Amino acid sequence: MLLRQTPILLSAKPRGFHLITAEVLGQLDLSDIEAGIVHLFIQHTSASLSLNENASADVRRDFERFFRQAIPDDSPYFEHTYEGPDDMTAHLKASLLGSSLTLPISQGRLALGTWQGIYLGEHREHGGRRRLLVTYWGSQIAGMNA
Amino acid sequence: MLLRQTPILLSAKPRGFHLITAEVLGQLDLSDIEAGIVHLFIQHTSASLSLNENASADVRRDFERFFRQAIPDDSPYFEHTYEGPDDMTAHLKASLLGSSLTLPISQGRLALGTWQGIYLGEHREHGGRRRLLVTYWGSQIAGMNA
Amino acid sequence: MLLRQTPILLSAKPRGFHLITAEVLGQLDLSDIEAGIVHLFIQHTSASLSLNENASADVRRDFERFFRQAIPDDSPYFEHTYEGPDDMTAHLKASLLGSSLTLPISQGRLALGTWQGIYLGEHREHGGRRRLLVTYWGSQIAGMNA
Repeated sequence: MLLRQTPILLSAKPRGFHLITAEVLGQLDLSDIEAGIVHLFIQHTSASLSLNENASADVRRDFERFFRQAIPDDSPYFEHTYEGPDDMTAHLKASLLGSSLTLPISQGRLALGTWQGIYLGEHREHGGRRRLLVTYWGSQIAGMNA
Repeated sequence: MLLRQTPILLSAKPRGFHLITAEVLGQLDLSDIEAGIVHLFIQHTSASLSLNENASADVRRDFERFFRQAIPDDSPYFEHTYEGPDDMTAHLKASLLGSSLTLPISQGRLALGTWQGIYLGEHREHGGRRRLLVTYWGSQIAGMNA
Repeated sequence: MLLRQTPILLSAKPRGFHLITAEVLGQLDLSDIEAGIVHLFIQHTSASLSLNENASADVRRDFERFFRQAIPDDSPYFEHTYEGPDDMTAHLKASLLGSSLTLPISQGRLALGTWQGIYLGEHREHGGRRRLLVTYWGSQIAGMNA
């Protein structure tokens, strides 16, 4: 069993859903892991990680449309409003979509389905750069002991 | 520490929520794991995995009723419509409910609560057979070294 | 690699969202883990675990307000009603928010972001004490072999 951990600082992104599979994978070394797990964790309460369709950008736009109407910024009953109208709704979206992803590794590669990609949900208007802490572990491919 | 990984191909199921605990557990060997984790991962973007009540089938029917009214197939603002009215709503449900489950193993068995069972959320009208990739790991029960 | 597992019985809490970071961490020993994961699992189908803002209690009150209006107890289409009006809505909230959390460990401590805390979502009026099963694993800090 080996285990590695690495911080990743994402580039700043506008409000909406963004495909970050390549940006994340470029900073991991999965090549000697036969079978295991990648754990992605975002250290913020107003952005989220989820998994969805990696081909059509219109799916990501529809995600943003859906969440804007389902959890409207101007909800009259919110008490926590002093950080702006996008703050409390960002917290809710972060908990509904989640702060982490656990993804399988198989034969040195992330074992996603054909159409799956990693989404960053940026739920603030000006969220800035987001920090991930990535932990991954698994059994080692025979003959690849470091 | 031992770690195993196995693909599971579920039988095709109609749109709705389905209890799959037995179908999944029948394909895993947890018997020699003292303490650990089972990671279930679905390699699709229009079906989900979640955990809920395993006794009353009416709970699963109410799940389907709730999600049909909360995320209606005919939402007028969707842009991604060319795969049919159940496609974009299936993507949203998959991200809200999640693509993976992490469940504890204790003394050779899945350590769920009394009323907990594994749900497949089939969010398409004709989703077909769904692929899972299951990874599980943990400490070995003494005297059971293979 | 070391792996530990421990049950935690939370104190009973009223319906709503509660910060339980200290109550959970007080029962774990992470001090000798260099890098790893804590897996928190709730063995119930009407309460949830999520991660969100740890500073302002008004965020937790807004969570409860949001979920009460998004999934109203008196939804007329529910079939599963014999356990009371808060039961079916509790099941839905539990699956939307989730039954587990996976959190990174770094240098002997939980590696949460500055503003992140662990929420128990108690979705029943009288949920009573809730059981967690906590499993954690990772690489050992050099020189701390037991």
